[in-house]
Amino acid sequence: MQRYFLNESYNESVHEYEVTGEPFHHMIRVMRMEAGNHVYLVFANDMSLEAEIREVKADAVMLKPVAIEQLQRELPIKVTIASGFPKGDKLEWIVQKGTELGAAQFLAYPAKTSIVKWDPKKRQKKQERLQKIAQEAAEQSHRQVCPTVELFATQSDLLAAMETADCVLVAYEESAKKGEHAQLVQTFRKVAPGQHLMVLFGPEGGFLPEEIERFVAAGAICCGLGPRILRTETAPLYVLGAASYHYELLHDTNDTD
Amino acid sequence: MQRYFLNESYNESVHEYEVTGEPFHHMIRVMRMEAGNHVYLVFANDMSLEAEIREVKADAVMLKPVAIEQLQRELPIKVTIASGFPKGDKLEWIVQKGTELGAAQFLAYPAKTSIVKWDPKKRQKKQERLQKIAQEAAEQSHRQVCPTVELFATQSDLLAAMETADCVLVAYEESAKKGEHAQLVQTFRKVAPGQHLMVLFGPEGGFLPEEIERFVAAGAICCGLGPRILRTETAPLYVLGAASYHYELLHDTNDTD
Repeated sequence: MQRYFLNESYNESVHEYEVTGEPFHHMIRVMRMEAGNHVYLVFANDMSLEAEIREVKADAVMLKPVAIEQLQRELPIKVTIASGFPKGDKLEWIVQKGTELGAAQFLAYPAKTSIVKWDPKKRQKKQERLQKIAQEAAEQSHRQVCPTVELFATQSDLLAAMETADCVLVAYEESAKKGEHAQLVQTFRKVAPGQHLMVLFGPEGGFLPEEIERFVAAGAICCGLGPRILRTETAPLYVLGAASYHYELLHDTNDTD
Repeated sequence: MQRYFLNESYNESVHEYEVTGEPFHHMIRVMRMEAGNHVYLVFANDMSLEAEIREVKADAVMLKPVAIEQLQRELPIKVTIASGFPKGDKLEWIVQKGTELGAAQFLAYPAKTSIVKWDPKKRQKKQERLQKIAQEAAEQSHRQVCPTVELFATQSDLLAAMETADCVLVAYEESAKKGEHAQLVQTFRKVAPGQHLMVLFGPEGGFLPEEIERFVAAGAICCGLGPRILRTETAPLYVLGAASYHYELLHDTNDTD
């Protein structure tokens, strides 16, 4: 069933929804839906419900709620993926796959070994494009929340953002090479459902020691992601898959027994 | 340090190695190495060691062993990723990222909803190309084993291959939608280090019920991969990340304490 993200928050007392703009266009012109058809409406405050089309107007469609969508599809912790600017279209890949795998937020920042440099205009365009990719991926993977994307101009912006997290990890290649394997598990055991974990990833060239020092001084913890060296676009997916396995399969907070 | 895969098996009593062909070319012509330089040599039987260049000849380089590489970099279980033929170059992505993440083997087969159709000649070319991608990815991610790739002509070939596995899972979208979340954990608890787990993935169009019936009749078990719907090229990476988390981080068999 088709899924549409709305900017409003879910409100129990509302008994009719009016959908306009892009979702209206997709529903009525692209999918050619009619009165009686059902869709999922996903709200800004993590709620989603099944709704039935009651009436199709010239530029709006009126829907009535049928049932609240029960299944919790979001990772119990908020995970922010923060990537040192990688080359080419790897950020597109990270955002698309990372959204499927449950990330709450994507940040990107200029790392010392980053090759790409974007002026404010390019950065803005790239950010909008990535936000669109996140939205499409969220709809396709049945997410109830659409992740946000932000491209920073400087590393100081990243350090400021780090303060919004309950815990910050740095995926450091040198840690992996030395066989570090305890930190990710310890972190998952410490970060409780509802809390915010941020993970920093380097670009293709990796991190310089001075960057690691800066991140650690700001409270980040270095960790390995298993014994194999992962590319800049693969490492975030490892973390998200591991987080899902830990929080959703091993320790399912939805279990009623 | 550069890493080179050799076709021979490691033999303790050998005290000098002669490397020719492509690895020789890369070492001497591309990297311009000389006597005294060190490299990793990776053997056909899961051993790898650090070696020093003793002499550079016209078309061969002679190396002497320095030390056995201690760190276990391979997933404790063998994981085979079996993908229903996806569109475009998704198999290239799956093989590259799947190799970084530790897969032992890649199979691909024609699923009922697969759109691509390759004749034997195309299939052979594609298989060789994918094998090369696996080799490059294995070298870059410091694998000690190079995964194999095989493209099947029919689903019957896949069913025959299933018999080589100790356990076969089918990543089934319908299971995920219904909230199935126990099977992957149970499977990881059951498949012991050294054993072989095969996981079947559908193409973009998913599986038809008749295919699921066929796989289940042959002993496969359906499972979900968390509550979000994953694309055909993302799902294998989820399984490999989860396997690494389970076998290498949570239950580290390398721990000496």
